[in-house]
Parts: sequence; structure tokens; C-alpha cells
Amino acid sequence: MIEKRAVTLLSGGLDSATTLAIALSQGYEVYALSFDYGQRHSIELERADRLAKSMGAKERSTIKVDLRAIGGSALTSDIEPPKESDLSAPMKPGIPVTYVPARNTVFLSLALAYAETLDAFDIFIGVNALDYSGYPDCRQEYISAFETMANLATKQAVEGKQRTVIHTPLISMSKSEIIKTGRSLNVDYSLTWSCYDPLPDEKPCLRCDSCRIRLNGFATAGLTDPLLG
Amino acid sequence: MIEKRAVTLLSGGLDSATTLAIALSQGYEVYALSFDYGQRHSIELERADRLAKSMGAKERSTIKVDLRAIGGSALTSDIEPPKESDLSAPMKPGIPVTYVPARNTVFLSLALAYAETLDAFDIFIGVNALDYSGYPDCRQEYISAFETMANLATKQAVEGKQRTVIHTPLISMSKSEIIKTGRSLNVDYSLTWSCYDPLPDEKPCLRCDSCRIRLNGFATAGLTDPLLG
Repeated sequence: MIEKRAVTLLSGGLDSATTLAIALSQGYEVYALSFDYGQRHSIELERADRLAKSMGAKERSTIKVDLRAIGGSALTSDIEPPKESDLSAPMKPGIPVTYVPARNTVFLSLALAYAETLDAFDIFIGVNALDYSGYPDCRQEYISAFETMANLATKQAVEGKQRTVIHTPLISMSKSEIIKTGRSLNVDYSLTWSCYDPLPDEKPCLRCDSCRIRLNGFATAGLTDPLLG
Repeated sequence: MIEKRAVTLLSGGLDSATTLAIALSQGYEVYALSFDYGQRHSIELERADRLAKSMGAKERSTIKVDLRAIGGSALTSDIEPPKESDLSAPMKPGIPVTYVPARNTVFLSLALAYAETLDAFDIFIGVNALDYSGYPDCRQEYISAFETMANLATKQAVEGKQRTVIHTPLISMSKSEIIKTGRSLNVDYSLTWSCYDPLPDEKPCLRCDSCRIRLNGFATAGLTDPLLG
């Protein structure tokens, strides 16, 4: 079998690690792509590196893009991400302050550029429309519109070789389904990182939205988060 | 009149300077956006700064995005841009080696992010479908698809405040029409920079595609390029 190349966005989080495992399980030669965008901490980039190596990505690249020059988000400025110590409290409705303006559009655009240099037509991204319902750029209609645009944007699109496809295998899964899928594909979740605002000793805060979604996901799946072990 | 904010992509070239003048002439408060993307030389960024100040942009920002990490173009690698000393020779057909993979998609995505933080719904870009017919991301159908995607991508799109519009005032103009329009708006073209591969003394090479298109444009308009003065 000739392996087809795919670019997979890899943040170092639980969702993108699972997405990487899915792309590999489908027989792709995977080029993992991470972004150093001025996020609050660099733990996730170090985790992305370890995940890519241990899972067998062909290459891993990091592109620097300074979203701090723009700001507008708790993840790229000095705004504090909100914390909630009651795990059973519902998420706040609406778009959270951790939303980064047009982040997935910027990341998918860079993935498209990278894919073109690799002669790759498949891009995997671990967006999820359930847990992140507040993020506009995690919805299917957005992804479909991006795909349409991508197929008009590049030299390879114009030369008509093949259609670029944006794969979103997690888009309709619950967090517990994602975790069960990843476990079945032997994802080592002890290497993944989710917390928006780690404690000084590099432990997850367990109170930000991302920690709470993760904790609830493991609990619903009937599993223990290895980060807590 | 309450001024509306617009983001204008400003490379420091002739087209983007003209686009900035058009946005200003339409009454926008303009936030000029440039990119330090690992291009071959930084003259154009210095020119962008001078143009923004002299023309009256409200602000000018530069976002660093490392497209050299991707490569794939004569403008972001060590490939030499092609040279042709016969000014009347036709441009080579097809997509030139100076095409940067998905560049306008990356730039427009960052402009969209920046616009969102400013509560701006208007983005100006100086793409031109005639002189750059080889570049897929300079065509109207591409721009329209980007606009559709943008209106699904952001918090401000979802919250339904207003539609984001991608303005391309130059898209159907010839180079000489662009130059005449700019002159009528008092653009100082001596501040603009077009050459892909300047000589060591910071003079334009006059032989790369960009220089040749510029020279022909001034000649057709019956004007003298002030850079040659």
C-alpha cells in the first residue's frame, strides 16, 4: 500500500492526540503540525513533541505565529481564564473568554500551506462541536466552508490534481466517546495536556473549563485520567 | 460621520498602498496590517511603516508568521526568483515560483482575527486578478469563498452583528489603472516597493516579474516611476 500523506494539527491535548491516532489508523503518513502562537504556557508544545514521536508521526513541525500581537483572548493575553471548583456546575452559556479570534481559521490556513508543500490533500483537525459549542470555528458548517475555500486557494487546487479534504473525526463525539476511541487505539493520555492555566508545579488546575470537560469525560467513560494517577 | 474601522493589508507595495488610499478615501478609520513572514528582504516592511504614517492610517501592526518553516516558494526559501532583462518579453504562463503556498489565505485569516479584536467588519486586500492571473488566491471566486467562510468563523459572525466584507478594489484593474487611481488619491509611489530581489544597494533589480509588471504599468499610464527618478 502506498501511504498517503496527511497533515494533522497537534496541540498536545487529548482531542488532537486522538485525532492523530485516528489518522494513523487510517493508514496515513502523518505530518503533525503545532503552533507556537503565544499561548499562556508551553507545556502543550512539549507534549505535542512527545506524542508525535511516541505515536509514530513521520514528522512534526512547529510554526510560530504571534497571535499575542492581536490579543482578544484569555489564552493570548493576561486575562485570567475563568475557574469553577464545583465540577458539576454547568458550563457558562455563550462564547467563553478563552475563544481566540479566528484561531482555527489561522491554524487551518497554515495547515493548508504546509499540506501544499508536501503534496498532501488531507488535513485532520480535532474540533468538537459538542463540548466546544460556544466556539464558532468548531462547527461543521464552518469546516465545510473552509474546505470549499481551500479548494479554490492553492496551486494544487487550481491544477486540479485532487480535492483537499478537512477531516474532523471527533466533531460529533462526546468527550467520553473520544477517550474510549483513543484508548482503543492505544493513545497514552498521560502524555496529553488540557489545562488552560497550570499550577506552578506543572499540575493541571482542575478548575478551568478544559480541565472540567476532561475530568467529566474520563468519569463518564468509567476511566481514570492518568494525569491524576 | 462616525468612522467605521477597516483592516487593510499593507505589504509596502504599489497595490497595497493604493488599496490603503482607497479605504481612506471611503471614510474608513484604517488599521494597516503587515506580515513579517520570512520574506527575502525587509525593505517592504520599512516602506509599509512609512506609507501607513504618511497616509494617515490609525494604526499599523506587524504580525510575525514564520512561513519559512514551510518553504515551497522563491519568496520564502533560497530559490532565486526568475529574471528577464527583455522588458517586452511575455510573462511565463502558469503559476510562478514566487507563489507562496496559501499566502493570501494565511494573511486574510490573520486579518480576520485582527478585525475581530477591533470590532471591524471590513477587510481590504489589494489582490489583482489580471497581472497575477497565475496566483489562485487572487481570483474573485476564491475571495468570495473566503468571505463566506469568514462569516461562519468568528464570534462576531455567530453573534450576528454584521457581515464581514472582503474588499478587493483592484481586482479587475490593470496596473496602469491602479497607478492612475493611486495618483488621483495622492499616493506617493516613491515610498512603495515592488522588487522581489533588490540589488545590494537597495535598488530594484528591474528584471524580476514584479519589477517588470511595475515598469510596464507606469509606461502604459504615461508616467515615470519615481523609484527610477
